[in-house]
Amino acid sequence: MKLNADLGESFGHWQQMADAEVMPYIDQANLACGYHAGDARTMQMSLALAKNHGVEIGAHPSYPDLQGFGRRSMRIPQDELMAMIHAQIATLEGMAKCQGLVLNYVKPHGALYNDMMRDIEIFEDLAFAVSQYHKLYPLMIQALADNSLQQTIASKYGIGLMYEAFADRQYKADGSLLSRQQKGAVLDADASVLQAKTLIEKGIVVSDIGTPIPLQADSICVHGDNPQALNAVKEIRVLIDSQAR
Amino acid sequence: MKLNADLGESFGHWQQMADAEVMPYIDQANLACGYHAGDARTMQMSLALAKNHGVEIGAHPSYPDLQGFGRRSMRIPQDELMAMIHAQIATLEGMAKCQGLVLNYVKPHGALYNDMMRDIEIFEDLAFAVSQYHKLYPLMIQALADNSLQQTIASKYGIGLMYEAFADRQYKADGSLLSRQQKGAVLDADASVLQAKTLIEKGIVVSDIGTPIPLQADSICVHGDNPQALNAVKEIRVLIDSQAR
Amino acid sequence: MKLNADLGESFGHWQQMADAEVMPYIDQANLACGYHAGDARTMQMSLALAKNHGVEIGAHPSYPDLQGFGRRSMRIPQDELMAMIHAQIATLEGMAKCQGLVLNYVKPHGALYNDMMRDIEIFEDLAFAVSQYHKLYPLMIQALADNSLQQTIASKYGIGLMYEAFADRQYKADGSLLSRQQKGAVLDADASVLQAKTLIEKGIVVSDIGTPIPLQADSICVHGDNPQALNAVKEIRVLIDSQAR
Amino acid sequence: MKLNADLGESFGHWQQMADAEVMPYIDQANLACGYHAGDARTMQMSLALAKNHGVEIGAHPSYPDLQGFGRRSMRIPQDELMAMIHAQIATLEGMAKCQGLVLNYVKPHGALYNDMMRDIEIFEDLAFAVSQYHKLYPLMIQALADNSLQQTIASKYGIGLMYEAFADRQYKADGSLLSRQQKGAVLDADASVLQAKTLIEKGIVVSDIGTPIPLQADSICVHGDNPQALNAVKEIRVLIDSQAR
Repeated sequence: MKLNADLGESFGHWQQMADAEVMPYIDQANLACGYHAGDARTMQMSLALAKNHGVEIGAHPSYPDLQGFGRRSMRIPQDELMAMIHAQIATLEGMAKCQGLVLNYVKPHGALYNDMMRDIEIFEDLAFAVSQYHKLYPLMIQALADNSLQQTIASKYGIGLMYEAFADRQYKADGSLLSRQQKGAVLDADASVLQAKTLIEKGIVVSDIGTPIPLQADSICVHGDNPQALNAVKEIRVLIDSQAR
Repeated sequence: MKLNADLGESFGHWQQMADAEVMPYIDQANLACGYHAGDARTMQMSLALAKNHGVEIGAHPSYPDLQGFGRRSMRIPQDELMAMIHAQIATLEGMAKCQGLVLNYVKPHGALYNDMMRDIEIFEDLAFAVSQYHKLYPLMIQALADNSLQQTIASKYGIGLMYEAFADRQYKADGSLLSRQQKGAVLDADASVLQAKTLIEKGIVVSDIGTPIPLQADSICVHGDNPQALNAVKEIRVLIDSQAR
Repeated sequence: MKLNADLGESFGHWQQMADAEVMPYIDQANLACGYHAGDARTMQMSLALAKNHGVEIGAHPSYPDLQGFGRRSMRIPQDELMAMIHAQIATLEGMAKCQGLVLNYVKPHGALYNDMMRDIEIFEDLAFAVSQYHKLYPLMIQALADNSLQQTIASKYGIGLMYEAFADRQYKADGSLLSRQQKGAVLDADASVLQAKTLIEKGIVVSDIGTPIPLQADSICVHGDNPQALNAVKEIRVLIDSQAR
Repeated sequence: MKLNADLGESFGHWQQMADAEVMPYIDQANLACGYHAGDARTMQMSLALAKNHGVEIGAHPSYPDLQGFGRRSMRIPQDELMAMIHAQIATLEGMAKCQGLVLNYVKPHGALYNDMMRDIEIFEDLAFAVSQYHKLYPLMIQALADNSLQQTIASKYGIGLMYEAFADRQYKADGSLLSRQQKGAVLDADASVLQAKTLIEKGIVVSDIGTPIPLQADSICVHGDNPQALNAVKEIRVLIDSQAR
């Protein structure tokens, strides 16, 4: 089990402090590629930080929406979406190479991620786009109770999938996430650690109505943008490391 | 002698028609990388067009200024400028690879180009930035009567230089260009063809006061954004091809 | 019956030529406010042109999407949408006053317009936003066979409505427009003039299956972005003027 | 003597926390108008906060540069600069009216402010732009030992001037500010309070080499973006209030 976090989400003057604090505790950094955050200097510095801590790098492409931080769903035609995905992967890939790093995977951001998990046609558009890139990268998506639909499409286009679960998001009985608009959608630090622990030890998460949901996750997504959350990240790190021994 | 043109300068809804018309007649296309023009779809389509016509591809990086089309001089610190240059090269390079193409060189755009030719410190910042990219691309700059200053810096950083002359811009006696703000700065189609012809045949351009200026140019920069200019491009193409025989 | 057109849709270097050619023939110019097009200088020059020709001015607010020209549907929360609408009206209103002009109405652009006509909740968000502006402007919307739903909401918020029909778009039997994605959605110049003529003289448009649709339109929306379309605009102008006598 | 602060400098997801904390202690809020910060929702919320605390509102226009936070000097032709200034004033003015507020003055931001104080031609461009707005607002500029040059130009165009001094910036003997690039340019909290106290009580600031510089300031500019700075703001507030009694 690995830990991943969405980082590199500063933009110019607006600096997010999480990067330096979270990077030492994670295995995989999903780095913004300029469409929802991540100007060139931010990418460069986040890559250097990932390098210092030996962290794998994922491109974190988004809808083109700085003002909305990529959290607004937009309808984009397939061919234009493919160009946008390619451009974002290319930017981060090239900048990573300048520091002697390689890109490891692609994980869509925000509304694009949600749309991909909600609408299998958008998932297919994304899988196709990733498959048409000049180098094959695996696509990181949400672990569901049943990912066979996504698996079939990924096989069709010859791309690999990586599955992630969320430490700090409340699951519903059908294995989807409770919407951020609803109360209790984001778990507090203690509950996050507990959810991660259950997942690491038993391979399940427990839904809002108590149902156990088996998830085949390769990675746990964490957020460390406040002191409590950062503590949770550290505790989950310890859990994973002790499990690994 | 080759012909180059600045292309791929559409943005979203705003389509420049020159690409399809000019591409058949040139050897090298300088393609916008998103900072002054060139959204992802535009890059993709311009690359496809270059591929169809067997045209070499140059990254055409700019100051970050869509509204000003990269024509406003901006003071950017060296480290941030390097990140910006790397990001732009990386984007176009990765998208080119998706079509089985390689990038051939880098030519700065607009105010960045002018600043580089006017201020040797900015030239050095650019030369350093290009030398730090993970792959070494030559830098295309303006052929002057004397380019020894630029040559020394390029050697210091181990990068190659390519020299271009302008068909449609009036030269001054010192070998620099008459500013666009001044009358007569842009030559008409006939004068452009004549200037190109003199350069191809005799290796000189004639300044606004009649002085002959010897230029060691590898390429002539042309513009084809109106019917007259396009005709000039075609005539210069014929001149070069007949010279080559 | 009046004629309106979407103008002021240049952005920086990318100049749309339609403004100067169309302005002499219309009564109402819907001017972009910076979110899908229309930088400050463009707004200023389009306002000057409207002033020269005594044309009424409408604010033409959009989703925030320069790259997509406001043609991508975006889900924006009501309070943020209101702020966006107010900001856009305010910008054009203040710049109009600098030339001694007043703003006359508000007409949403592109995807925002389509969303408003398709989804009555979004219409209500817009009606509410317009009603909360410090000055009451009428909202220009699409004339349908039955606009009672929109009328009820407009009355609830105390705002006026202006109705427009389209000269160059194919209507369906239910009074909505054939999608731009479908063949025949945009009428050619001759068909546009005929559709306008039928509307002016008989108060109906004819649908794609021949059904007559009665429309209570105050204004006809035209486009003049190519020579044929411009000719159609001129012919419709003559039709309206002769009708008025 | 009044206290002013640059606020409303969030953008979308990137929230600056200073606004709510600083607003209770100041008299004048310089609010970003969208060009360097301040999306529509940010403007709306900052205006509401200013209203709650009875704080005067200044438009804080900038060069168009979100990525560089308006801190990069750009060369903009006079007519385009005027359009940009008008558009920014208009946006904030209209949104202020929606909350029953009036705009009180205009204070340029960042590189535009510095350029205006460094280059009298740019000052004249700005003074002209402000004078051509449909309503006359005073322009807030930096108090110098001698502002006669600025005063002459302001009189020529019939606009008023307001003068501000800086609590937390080190002055040089000629009355200009030590560049942010130099060590000691920004004073710590204690030194800020002392500089404000000297200014309030004696009408002078002391330069880096100990020279007393007399300044006729109407307002002191403070920053409250960290706990120490916020404490300094509170102390300066007390100093002003006790002086006023």
